[in-house]
Amino acid sequence: MMDQNVYTRPLALDKLRISDGFWHEYQLRVLDKVIPYQWEALNDRVPGADKSGCVSNFEVAAGLKQGAFYGCVFQDSDAAKWLEAVAYALTLRPDPALEATADGLISTICAAQQPDGYLDTYYIINGLDKRFSNLRDNHELYCFGHMTEAAVAYYHATGKDTLLNAMIRYADCIDREIGPEEGKKRGYPGHEVAEMALIRLYEVTKDEKHLRLAKYFIDERGREPLYFDEEGRKNGSRFYWEHTHFRYQYYQAGRPVRRQHDAEGHAVRAAYLMSGIADVARVTGDGTLAETARALWDSVTKRRMYITGAIGSSHVGESFTFDYDLPNDTVYGETCAAIGLVFFARRMLETAPKAEYADVMERALYNGVISGMSLDGTRFFYVNPLEVLPEACEKDENKRHVRPERQKWFGCACCPPNLARLLASVGQYMVTQNGRAAFIHLYIGAELEVDLGGQALQLKLGSGLPWHGAVRLSVQAGSAEGTIALRVPGWCPGWTLKVNGSSVEAIPEDGYLKLSRLWQPGDTVTLDLAMPVTRMAAHPSVREDVGRVAVTRGPLVYCLEQADNGPGLHRLRLPRSAAFTAHEEPGLLGGVTALTAEGIREEDTWDGDALYAPVRDAKQSPQTLTFIPYYAWANRGVGEMSVWVRE
Amino acid sequence: MMDQNVYTRPLALDKLRISDGFWHEYQLRVLDKVIPYQWEALNDRVPGADKSGCVSNFEVAAGLKQGAFYGCVFQDSDAAKWLEAVAYALTLRPDPALEATADGLISTICAAQQPDGYLDTYYIINGLDKRFSNLRDNHELYCFGHMTEAAVAYYHATGKDTLLNAMIRYADCIDREIGPEEGKKRGYPGHEVAEMALIRLYEVTKDEKHLRLAKYFIDERGREPLYFDEEGRKNGSRFYWEHTHFRYQYYQAGRPVRRQHDAEGHAVRAAYLMSGIADVARVTGDGTLAETARALWDSVTKRRMYITGAIGSSHVGESFTFDYDLPNDTVYGETCAAIGLVFFARRMLETAPKAEYADVMERALYNGVISGMSLDGTRFFYVNPLEVLPEACEKDENKRHVRPERQKWFGCACCPPNLARLLASVGQYMVTQNGRAAFIHLYIGAELEVDLGGQALQLKLGSGLPWHGAVRLSVQAGSAEGTIALRVPGWCPGWTLKVNGSSVEAIPEDGYLKLSRLWQPGDTVTLDLAMPVTRMAAHPSVREDVGRVAVTRGPLVYCLEQADNGPGLHRLRLPRSAAFTAHEEPGLLGGVTALTAEGIREEDTWDGDALYAPVRDAKQSPQTLTFIPYYAWANRGVGEMSVWVRE
Repeated sequence: MMDQNVYTRPLALDKLRISDGFWHEYQLRVLDKVIPYQWEALNDRVPGADKSGCVSNFEVAAGLKQGAFYGCVFQDSDAAKWLEAVAYALTLRPDPALEATADGLISTICAAQQPDGYLDTYYIINGLDKRFSNLRDNHELYCFGHMTEAAVAYYHATGKDTLLNAMIRYADCIDREIGPEEGKKRGYPGHEVAEMALIRLYEVTKDEKHLRLAKYFIDERGREPLYFDEEGRKNGSRFYWEHTHFRYQYYQAGRPVRRQHDAEGHAVRAAYLMSGIADVARVTGDGTLAETARALWDSVTKRRMYITGAIGSSHVGESFTFDYDLPNDTVYGETCAAIGLVFFARRMLETAPKAEYADVMERALYNGVISGMSLDGTRFFYVNPLEVLPEACEKDENKRHVRPERQKWFGCACCPPNLARLLASVGQYMVTQNGRAAFIHLYIGAELEVDLGGQALQLKLGSGLPWHGAVRLSVQAGSAEGTIALRVPGWCPGWTLKVNGSSVEAIPEDGYLKLSRLWQPGDTVTLDLAMPVTRMAAHPSVREDVGRVAVTRGPLVYCLEQADNGPGLHRLRLPRSAAFTAHEEPGLLGGVTALTAEGIREEDTWDGDALYAPVRDAKQSPQTLTFIPYYAWANRGVGEMSVWVRE
Repeated sequence: MMDQNVYTRPLALDKLRISDGFWHEYQLRVLDKVIPYQWEALNDRVPGADKSGCVSNFEVAAGLKQGAFYGCVFQDSDAAKWLEAVAYALTLRPDPALEATADGLISTICAAQQPDGYLDTYYIINGLDKRFSNLRDNHELYCFGHMTEAAVAYYHATGKDTLLNAMIRYADCIDREIGPEEGKKRGYPGHEVAEMALIRLYEVTKDEKHLRLAKYFIDERGREPLYFDEEGRKNGSRFYWEHTHFRYQYYQAGRPVRRQHDAEGHAVRAAYLMSGIADVARVTGDGTLAETARALWDSVTKRRMYITGAIGSSHVGESFTFDYDLPNDTVYGETCAAIGLVFFARRMLETAPKAEYADVMERALYNGVISGMSLDGTRFFYVNPLEVLPEACEKDENKRHVRPERQKWFGCACCPPNLARLLASVGQYMVTQNGRAAFIHLYIGAELEVDLGGQALQLKLGSGLPWHGAVRLSVQAGSAEGTIALRVPGWCPGWTLKVNGSSVEAIPEDGYLKLSRLWQPGDTVTLDLAMPVTRMAAHPSVREDVGRVAVTRGPLVYCLEQADNGPGLHRLRLPRSAAFTAHEEPGLLGGVTALTAEGIREEDTWDGDALYAPVRDAKQSPQTLTFIPYYAWANRGVGEMSVWVRE
């Protein structure tokens, strides 16, 4: 059994108000741009964008109009993610019109629900006799999971339980048909997410049935005889991944979950499963499951993760490949997968507040997650490469999945609404607490209320991140005895800490500076984090990055763009001796700190047009290299980009 | 019009006997191993190998037995390539039993021929009503081309014209149904080769019809309205390449041939078309076509060719991609494509004897062609990578087409018989002549008879290549006035030339040292070619090779193998200052000169298990690097391999 006393939980969103210059701006973009735009997209009212059909499917399923099902089998989940984002948005800023729109959508969704609780428009429209017959590929439990998350979030945000009750009925329906008992299907989700969702539901309902179902999904997954195999034989569906090396591990179902030690298969599925594993391990105190979560954490973050927090090395199966295989230009790095890694990291933090979890969470959030959206909030990346040559994206079919510019919407539109719900709820990743201590994981400017020993403490947190490392914490109201733990980020080589103006010598425990006292109004903590520009190397087993460095500063990974450095980025070198200068550029890319260094461009001194010739000394011309934050790339037209630069 | 007086032609194979230690060994392997093995394979008698069905298809088509068609639509071409190899083999070494076997196969083939001359087992067995209805994909004209090449070769080798006459009848049949005239199909080959084949046929028959058909295939190709487009609409077949960037350029049919300036699409198809273009340009003296051939030559050899002579950068469509896009690990580099490049180079040499053509021909032959076969002649590569990590070939679906070990046979078995016919006829690539001059392109030990001014001159050529650069030429018999032109290879930085013991100062013209005199028995020429180990760089636009060098010596490209250097080849460095030692190793890999140099291994000084960390100086340990000839890699089990090494 795990020590459940160390568990911490995130703040409820109504205990926290973000005012941060960086993240609040992102949230406003979600509120002002993304949510309204996505509503139009879900209703097929965006000219030139791929049709969604999502709202229409619910209307057809509810008998409100005639029509056919349109879109992917998981189209319902787009509405769910949008509703979840709306729930968080309403917490951030009341908006009666938006709430009315969401209530209307919820009415339509609930009107589509069948008398026995079933609720998936694909099968309601195309024939209920086939429902639950292809759990492997047809995403019913995935849509259930997302809609359940939306229902819980909407309930927390508004107190309205219409959708929550609908999803409880749907969970009952699933529980009647799927499970380990005689006469039920021994299935589980082909695309995970229901595991996390059921735990969120359980934490509202306290109904053991919901916990049991989540636990069953994890326990049964990958057991012999393999359900997906039997199901495929029964329904005669083609097993698309038959001739790949990963086969059922595409679904993380090639082995029982507790025997999975490497992150394998579809990266989003894997990240959602890992999150569910961590959740169930925490709630049940199951030590073997906690060990599995930890092994998978190590696999992902120590051997299979890009420096941006992107995961998924191959577009074939949108999947993990093998240890240290991290190609920068054929990468998948789906936005949703980086989001999934944030989910997983937060859940690991809940089981044990260690800075290594927060480091990865922060890495993904500031880099591979927000790179998925344009600075104006209107265009999105599905794939987040670390190196782009636009011509290759067009003419090398191995790289056609990599786009050099963000798109307006996707036929398979999982990423944009996923980003919206994460950004709108980013406060849930800042702080976790357990009644004795509050752990501040992310320094995001905010007002928040923590609970120490049953006493509420109103705090104000100020932060200069990601541009400078000044953190200020003050007690605004309340009085409580307990621990406030401040994370020392992995990227920070030194810091100064003061409490009420006096220097404090503290040694981080698991990466946190723990301050225990009776906190009183007016108490102030200042933490100044050194944030030098740093040349980062990849583990020497990463073939693609050998001889190259990535430039980071604080939580941000930087990159070279053609817009600043001209074409032929592979000809640029950053000598070890070059000094960096940081420039605050309020007018650049929405306001960033850019970095420059004296680098080298290897000039073309090639004689004639031969493709190969005896090596000669290249002419090395000095060139000022300009680095911009990776998240902000591809906002100035199409061009080359590279995170890793030769030394 | 081109100056047709400069044209040269290869020696007939009966004018030449190869005795070279290197190439004759390859030929013996073809005679003793490959041809007998392939006969067994074509007859489905090799246990454990993919079934061929090739001979069986002819038997079924001839009514000699009952059965269904088996294999690829182009299965007939395997018999053709085998017969062509046998023809060359019979020139190298009489073999009545083999000849009787070949005659038997020819009987079967001819028995399958239809009364109107049609001869393709796929349609004879599956329904003649559909013949010539899918020229785009169904390879009838490809099979015709290969069988015609076999027929011409067999006629030259044996004087027997049974197959030749059959193919003349088939050509008549094609000519009646396909062509520019009213009522005929305005089609052309989906997979080129018939263009070359028809020119070979024309050079035997002197029948203008055969030249006209070859010319028509080139002139019509890619013209609007596009035949393949119309045909696809008519037969309702799916256009597999619809959603790629290359579309009809997969078949080199997206534009008229004379408007094609870049090598595009399927590399084997492209190389065969280019060869046909050069042939037709030579025979017709068509200057615009010659310019097209030259533009395509430049595109391939100056912007789209690997240092090994491999071509085809992507497995998607087995195709060219774009200028300077030469990834080493996701490369296609099909053996057949390198063979096609040899065909093209020889034909360019025929139009103008320039050493740049011979340099490429030699590069492909000594590297990317013979790498396709194991040293014992029993296993074959389809794909010839320049960098291999075995785990990636298994677990990265982008590299699954790359095999780390050669295979016994393939379901699509184009490469092994193609290699067999090329190796058995390698003499046709050594020398070309035009009555006034004989150009020696490749230094392969041989006895040969050239024609100068109508006089035959018996020559003996001795060569130490590829291991050392001593070339000896002597007149054995005959007396003739004219020019013997000796190529100075592009890799050779210096040479000494003596005629009858006296030094001769000669300046190469187009890369050839031209010796004009009255040649008498006993005349000797000695040419000593300097052959230092050379570090080669790729053009600075080749992203994948930046900061790396390839090691060459003479015509051979070398590589690092794990067997000699341990795993983690990416951690090895070859400093510019390291001196090379060449070692003759008679017991290694069938006898090679290996190279060693004092290199560096960057040791793993990484702290802990972090995936990314601030850069530190790597511990650099000296390590002797051992390079072996690239062609000989993968003959000592599965392991890493790399041609390019970091400096």
